Amino acid sequence: MHTLAVLALFLSLSPAFALWPLPRQISKGTTALKLSPGFNIKLSGIRNAPKDLTDAVARSSNYLRNDKLQALVVDRGASSAQRVASAKSLKTLTLSLTSSAKTVKSISEDAVLPLESRVEGYTLIIPADGSEATLTANSTLGLFRGLTTFEQVWYEWNGNSYTLEAPFNIEDSPAYPYRGFMLDTARNYFPVSDIKRTLDAMSWVKINTLHWHIVDSQSFPLQVPGFLELSEKGAYNAQSVYTASDVKGIVDYAAARGIDVIAEIDTPGHTSAIAKSFPEHIACPEASPWTQFANAGQLRLANPDTVNFTASLLTSAASLFRSSYFGTGGDEINTNCYTQDNQTQAELAAQGKTLDQALDEFTQVSHKALKAVGKTAMVWEEMLLVHPVNLANDTLVMVWISPANVASVVQKGYKVIHAANDYFYLDCGHGGWVGQNVLGNSWCDPFKTWQKAYSFDPLANLTSDQYHLVQGGQHLLWTEQSSPANLDSIVWPRAATSAEVFWSGPGGDVGAALPRLHDIAYRFNQRGVQAIALQPEWCALRPGACDLNA
Amino acid sequence: MHTLAVLALFLSLSPAFALWPLPRQISKGTTALKLSPGFNIKLSGIRNAPKDLTDAVARSSNYLRNDKLQALVVDRGASSAQRVASAKSLKTLTLSLTSSAKTVKSISEDAVLPLESRVEGYTLIIPADGSEATLTANSTLGLFRGLTTFEQVWYEWNGNSYTLEAPFNIEDSPAYPYRGFMLDTARNYFPVSDIKRTLDAMSWVKINTLHWHIVDSQSFPLQVPGFLELSEKGAYNAQSVYTASDVKGIVDYAAARGIDVIAEIDTPGHTSAIAKSFPEHIACPEASPWTQFANAGQLRLANPDTVNFTASLLTSAASLFRSSYFGTGGDEINTNCYTQDNQTQAELAAQGKTLDQALDEFTQVSHKALKAVGKTAMVWEEMLLVHPVNLANDTLVMVWISPANVASVVQKGYKVIHAANDYFYLDCGHGGWVGQNVLGNSWCDPFKTWQKAYSFDPLANLTSDQYHLVQGGQHLLWTEQSSPANLDSIVWPRAATSAEVFWSGPGGDVGAALPRLHDIAYRFNQRGVQAIALQPEWCALRPGACDLNA
Repeated sequence: MHTLAVLALFLSLSPAFALWPLPRQISKGTTALKLSPGFNIKLSGIRNAPKDLTDAVARSSNYLRNDKLQALVVDRGASSAQRVASAKSLKTLTLSLTSSAKTVKSISEDAVLPLESRVEGYTLIIPADGSEATLTANSTLGLFRGLTTFEQVWYEWNGNSYTLEAPFNIEDSPAYPYRGFMLDTARNYFPVSDIKRTLDAMSWVKINTLHWHIVDSQSFPLQVPGFLELSEKGAYNAQSVYTASDVKGIVDYAAARGIDVIAEIDTPGHTSAIAKSFPEHIACPEASPWTQFANAGQLRLANPDTVNFTASLLTSAASLFRSSYFGTGGDEINTNCYTQDNQTQAELAAQGKTLDQALDEFTQVSHKALKAVGKTAMVWEEMLLVHPVNLANDTLVMVWISPANVASVVQKGYKVIHAANDYFYLDCGHGGWVGQNVLGNSWCDPFKTWQKAYSFDPLANLTSDQYHLVQGGQHLLWTEQSSPANLDSIVWPRAATSAEVFWSGPGGDVGAALPRLHDIAYRFNQRGVQAIALQPEWCALRPGACDLNA
Repeated sequence: MHTLAVLALFLSLSPAFALWPLPRQISKGTTALKLSPGFNIKLSGIRNAPKDLTDAVARSSNYLRNDKLQALVVDRGASSAQRVASAKSLKTLTLSLTSSAKTVKSISEDAVLPLESRVEGYTLIIPADGSEATLTANSTLGLFRGLTTFEQVWYEWNGNSYTLEAPFNIEDSPAYPYRGFMLDTARNYFPVSDIKRTLDAMSWVKINTLHWHIVDSQSFPLQVPGFLELSEKGAYNAQSVYTASDVKGIVDYAAARGIDVIAEIDTPGHTSAIAKSFPEHIACPEASPWTQFANAGQLRLANPDTVNFTASLLTSAASLFRSSYFGTGGDEINTNCYTQDNQTQAELAAQGKTLDQALDEFTQVSHKALKAVGKTAMVWEEMLLVHPVNLANDTLVMVWISPANVASVVQKGYKVIHAANDYFYLDCGHGGWVGQNVLGNSWCDPFKTWQKAYSFDPLANLTSDQYHLVQGGQHLLWTEQSSPANLDSIVWPRAATSAEVFWSGPGGDVGAALPRLHDIAYRFNQRGVQAIALQPEWCALRPGACDLNA
């Protein structure tokens, strides 16, 4: 972390430097440089350039023209006007691929590769003398990542887009292959436009995975081929449904922005909404009394018809997505629900199985069916640590209950996705959503500050031979108390902090990060994403002045 | 509280009844009634009807046409369609005043009367048989309050606006004359359009006071006649300024909606922004080190020129507002700042005064100058309890540090506005805004839930002969971490809970309130105010089903 520490020191003197996430290696200068009015992004030697790459270039050009973000300094850039006026003009950024493969993969193809095959690194060189800037990478996905970095270099004053810190030499690639954001669209529904806006914002900070928790006990807004009753009866209303065409639109939009959409249909718990159309498959569909049946109903995991139904449902849903992964859930199984379900008890007795044995078979059937259609399963930690299921070795295991559980998961040899509620749950600390709750506290108080998330150490309590199992992590939004009304404000800029932890690596200093986090939040606002203010603007314009120890 | 308790029981069976705040006296039936396509609001016998009344009627007609709020029940109203189709149609709501005064005061005139003179009661009768509904009041302001109630009676299904609970007999008036919301526009700036949208939302729940904390140490966005340097140099930028015309627009907009705007220029602390244009008046303008100088600079209260400057500034600013009140602040005086300011120490020594004696004179000069232009002062509790200043008896004293301090304020005979941080501070619990704050906690953690605010007892620890001194209370938004990005979502629907406590009186049950609070939040959304979701929509459509003890 030595490089980071040196950078941090420098940053505190140089607030205008605002790349987020921080590149892994960077050197920069002190020369002013501006974009020429005719500034142009060119592709060089890329045969049959994929449309999503030329589209990405067009979007970058658009951001460069329209961001109009003034530097976060007291005079917003006025005192630099003279330097900028006499600065050299950059006319061209040239993109090229280091390999000369005849068939160039598109960003979208790169984005949905298995984690171990994803190539996101890039090299960005911006000379100070106005000569051509170059962006090179081994993949179109890498080029896209570099474009998002290039966009963050520039401030606006009086019609000029400028930097005071040319030349730049950036050599960048992610510390972890999985950098995600989870959105729950079942507790409250989010229109497609909200999801697409969120995908844009995610791409601006190099988040590469939307973990889409689409359905849950409260509603089933996904139109699944062959299972249309599920959304017809289980969605909140006919408008609150993601059609197959909506899903394709979202998946394509995401992929073109370097984002893999990992869908999740949580099983066997969190499935009450299925009871509206297939009551035969669901135990205790009405979660009452709450104290006994929180999060139920649940799929009748010991029933062979239900096992087959589940495998068919998951594979059919999975067919809507390009990802190599599919989430099958497995969290918060309420054993009390099964204990009180006569049918399940009879089936277990008839088969001579324990609940965990039935769950194992239930899960294996689903996972094998998914594997047969090319999908690797992603599950919550309980599937390994609470109900020990025989999972395939390549299963991704999300650890949410406590980061202390990560050690147990890697000890068993499984790949881990960090999703610690005490660091990354964006919903916590806004009061409880359960009714008749006089004090109004939430189960996961307090609010998870950006500082807390930023302090996360992905490798804590692990040995170096286990490090390779840590795939990355994510912020998560469970939406019991969220809706389109507060989507942007509850997510941004907090979710940018895990994006940096898992791209740049951990160990960053919150004091050094704050000016850059302001910067990305202000840039989000310029682009129409309602990231919240982290401090009074007075502080945002005076890095360090509002520090506790200043 | 017997009536409320009975209603609460009834409400749990009848979620569609969703008036907020709850009228003080109400009876209702079980008959369906719909609005006629030609439904019309008429004024009867109101001579020279004020324009703001006819405008209010037009707005109500507009809401009745455009709210299109479906009932929060599982089928959203479908199963009532038959009853509604065959229901009687209401063709007319007739408004009249009970007094036949030749000169009718406008809503705007009523809204800015002193608290003791404000008349907001009304009687609303909606027969079940389709015959004329009547709204009567002693004031146009009362008629306006009744209109906002009338608007909340109706749901929409298939083009019909209907209720299932006619007839209604409502006799309503507020429990407390002051029901406020405080907005800080100094830590971060809010455009006029955000303030106007907030005023609309406030009026929908009968909040009658905007306590506008306009300026503070971080910025001075108010254009004050004769003191234009203050905003020219003290605003964040030339666009982030409320011009005299903006202020008039806001004050008029508010008054027409029954809202008095009480402006505050906090003195002598929280005035660092004044140092940019009048450095001679400010001690320790740069608040560094933070641990010693939090919230400084401060007006040099022992300097006669500064005393006169302050009185002139306050009276000039006050001239922009119609209110009978003006806030002069007085919170969080940092004595350390004055101790270390040589000039203040010299002046105190020369005058042979203690700091508190100087503060007393400073305050009296300001308050007398305001009184001379017809304004009564509103101050924070420290002016009475920390630095005992000789305040005029009619001064409004806001208690924010602890509601336990209310007893001391009323014991001294002063009128109290409740502003308890542990119930009503909307900013708390989102992490700290001070930089280099590794854990990120805020000084007033945790988040103040709507349930907490709703449980507030304005009369706790008081004797019945002191009750009359309690004027009401308010939610407050300090904006260190808020901006237009999250204004709606951090305020609504939470601020509606104090609106009900101070209109309907305390003692409401959170379980019974929740369905109605959902309802007003959904109605806010229909009207373009981004109130957050309090629960999954599944719960919102099934009152009680997500209760902890269900």
